[in-house]
Amino acid sequence: MIYDLIRDEIKNFKNYEVTTIECMYKMDANETPFGLPEATMNNLQEIVKNANVNRYPDPVSLKLRDKLAEYCGTSRENIFVGNGSDEIIHILMNAFVSKNDCVVYPVPSFSMYKVYSQIAGARNVEVALKDDYSYNVDEIINAINRFKPKMVILCNPNNPTGTTLDRDDIVKILEVNDGITVVDEAYYEFFGETVVDLIGKYERLTVLRTLSKAYGLAGLRVGYAVSNSDMVSCLNMVKSPYNVNSISQAIALSVLEEVRVDEKVDYIKNERKFLQDGLKEIGDLKVYDSKANFLLIEFDDADYVYNKLLEKGILVRNFSGDKNLSNTLRVTIGTREANSYFLKCLKEILI
Amino acid sequence: MIYDLIRDEIKNFKNYEVTTIECMYKMDANETPFGLPEATMNNLQEIVKNANVNRYPDPVSLKLRDKLAEYCGTSRENIFVGNGSDEIIHILMNAFVSKNDCVVYPVPSFSMYKVYSQIAGARNVEVALKDDYSYNVDEIINAINRFKPKMVILCNPNNPTGTTLDRDDIVKILEVNDGITVVDEAYYEFFGETVVDLIGKYERLTVLRTLSKAYGLAGLRVGYAVSNSDMVSCLNMVKSPYNVNSISQAIALSVLEEVRVDEKVDYIKNERKFLQDGLKEIGDLKVYDSKANFLLIEFDDADYVYNKLLEKGILVRNFSGDKNLSNTLRVTIGTREANSYFLKCLKEILI
Repeated sequence: MIYDLIRDEIKNFKNYEVTTIECMYKMDANETPFGLPEATMNNLQEIVKNANVNRYPDPVSLKLRDKLAEYCGTSRENIFVGNGSDEIIHILMNAFVSKNDCVVYPVPSFSMYKVYSQIAGARNVEVALKDDYSYNVDEIINAINRFKPKMVILCNPNNPTGTTLDRDDIVKILEVNDGITVVDEAYYEFFGETVVDLIGKYERLTVLRTLSKAYGLAGLRVGYAVSNSDMVSCLNMVKSPYNVNSISQAIALSVLEEVRVDEKVDYIKNERKFLQDGLKEIGDLKVYDSKANFLLIEFDDADYVYNKLLEKGILVRNFSGDKNLSNTLRVTIGTREANSYFLKCLKEILI
Repeated sequence: MIYDLIRDEIKNFKNYEVTTIECMYKMDANETPFGLPEATMNNLQEIVKNANVNRYPDPVSLKLRDKLAEYCGTSRENIFVGNGSDEIIHILMNAFVSKNDCVVYPVPSFSMYKVYSQIAGARNVEVALKDDYSYNVDEIINAINRFKPKMVILCNPNNPTGTTLDRDDIVKILEVNDGITVVDEAYYEFFGETVVDLIGKYERLTVLRTLSKAYGLAGLRVGYAVSNSDMVSCLNMVKSPYNVNSISQAIALSVLEEVRVDEKVDYIKNERKFLQDGLKEIGDLKVYDSKANFLLIEFDDADYVYNKLLEKGILVRNFSGDKNLSNTLRVTIGTREANSYFLKCLKEILI
C-alpha cells in the first residue's frame, strides 16, 4: 500500500476534499466580487502575446516587484513574489525550519501555518486567542521565551476572526523573538495599518501580502513578501526557479496600474458596516468586530444556519466543526445585493 | 545576520542568479519556438472572463485533468496537476521523503532532483551515468539494494544528455525498488516511448509530464503526474490548496484542444536531424545522440565556444563548469532559421 510509505509527519493530513457547491452567492472564501479592470481586459491580447508563454517566466518577477515596491514604499530588493502568499510561507519554512524546530502561531488562524509547519517536521506551538478572539500577546511572548522558536507567525487582521494586533504589541514580539517573525497582512487594505515600515529596523521581520483579496486576483496566485534584502536572498535560494507564471505576472502588473484599489476597499468597508448594522438589527447575535472583508458570527446552532443559508443559495464558511471556533460561520462581505439577500435570509432562518 | 538562521541542509544553496542575457536566438532552456494556437488567442477574452480570476482556482484542476487523462489514455483519478512538474517533485518529497531518507537519482540530470532532495533533508545517492552518458542500470539497482531508498528518480529522455532508458530496464528497477519510482518524461513527446501504461501494474510508479516542452507552455507552469489513484490522493494531501492558477488551467485546456502537437513534434524532430547532420559536416565534434529537443555537444573549450556564440547573438546552455559534464554545451532545437544560423556561426568559430 502506497499509504504505508507516507511520512509520519503528515500521516494525519486529509485528502483535500473536492467540494464544488453550487450557489447563487459565494461568500465563503474571502474573495472580492469585482472583475478585472476594463483596461486590462481590453489589453489582453497584447498582455498574453508579450508574455511569450512558450518561454519560461521571469524567475524573479522584476517588473512586478518594481510595481509592488512602489505600492509599498520600498525597493525592488525588499520584495519577493510567490505563487500565492501561502507558497511564501512554505518557502520560509524550507529556508529556516528544520525537523524539530519550533514554530509559534495563533489558533484559530489561517490553517496553512500548521500544515506547512507539519510538512517541515517542526514542533507546532499553538497559542490560543483569548475568548473574545483577541490576541494573547503575553502568552505569545511566554511561548517565545520558553520555546525559542525558529519562526513566529502572526496574522493581522487575523483570519477567520477579523481581530487585529496593535503595532506596539508586534514591536514587543519583535523585540523578544530571535527567530523569524512573519506578519501575514493578507487583509491589510481593509484594515489600513501595517508594519512594513519596520523591516529596516527588524531584519528578521517579514510581512506577507497578497493580490488575492483587495486586488481581487485570487485566481492568479500572486502573493508577496516585504522584508530586508538579505531575507529576499534567502527566499530566492530555496524557491523553485519559475514559481510565478508569466501571465499572472503580466496581468498583476496591469491590474496594479489600472485598478483604483481605494475605491474597491471603500466599497467593501461600507458594505462591512452595512452588514454589521443589519446583523445588529436581527438581534441577539454575537458578531466579532472585524477589520477584514469578512465577519465571524456565532450562532446557537451554526450547522443549522449554514445548511439553511445553503438551501437559499448562499455559501458561507462553516467552522462549527473546529474546536477553536465552535458554532461560528464566517461570511465574506459581498456586493450590496448579496449582503442584503444574506440579511433577509438570516432573518427568515432565525425567526 | 539572517543567514545564520538558514537551515544546515541548504547552507550551500546559491542565490538564484538573475541572468537576463540579451540574444537574437534563445537556445538555452529547451523551450519550443511556437506561439499559442490562433484559436486560443482569438478566444482569450472569453477564456479569461470565464476563469473568474477574483475567485480561487479549481483546487484539483478537474477539466484539465479530464483532458490530460484523455491524452494519456487514463482516467481523471490518475492525473495530478502541478505548478510545473518541478513542483510535483517537491510535493512527492513532501509526501514521502523525511530527513535522512535516501533518494537515488542519476547525475548528470535535471538539477532540481538534488535541490528538492536537500530541502527534504534526505541523503542523496547520486548514480553517475556511464562515460557515454547512457544510464548505468546495474549501478542504480546496486544503489537500491544497498540504500533501500524512499524514492528513485529517473529522467527519460535524460536532461541534459538526451540519452534514454529502455523500458525493460525501467521494469527491472521497478521490480527491485520498494520505494517510490518517479520517471520524469518531460521530453516524452520527442522520444515517443512511455511507461504510463505500467501505472496499473506498479502502484509505486509515478510518471511526470509537462506542457512546458512539446506543448510550448513553459511560461504557464503546468506539469502533471500520471499514477495510480492512491498516489494522486497522497499528493493531494500535501499540495497547497490552490497550486495551479485559473488562467493557466484555462489556457492549457484550450491549447490541448487546439494544438496539433504531432506537427510541432515532427517539426522539432526534423530540425534535430538537420542540426545533427550539420554538426557532422563540421567535423570532429562529439555530439551525443538525443531523443529530446536539445543536443549535448562536447568541445575542446566549451567556454570559448559559448562566449563566441553569445557574441553572435546565440544563447546556449553552458555546462563547462559542471564536473559531471565537462566541456559541453546544450543547444535547444530551434526554428530552421535559428538552427541554420547556429551551424553557420559554429563553423566560423571552430575554423
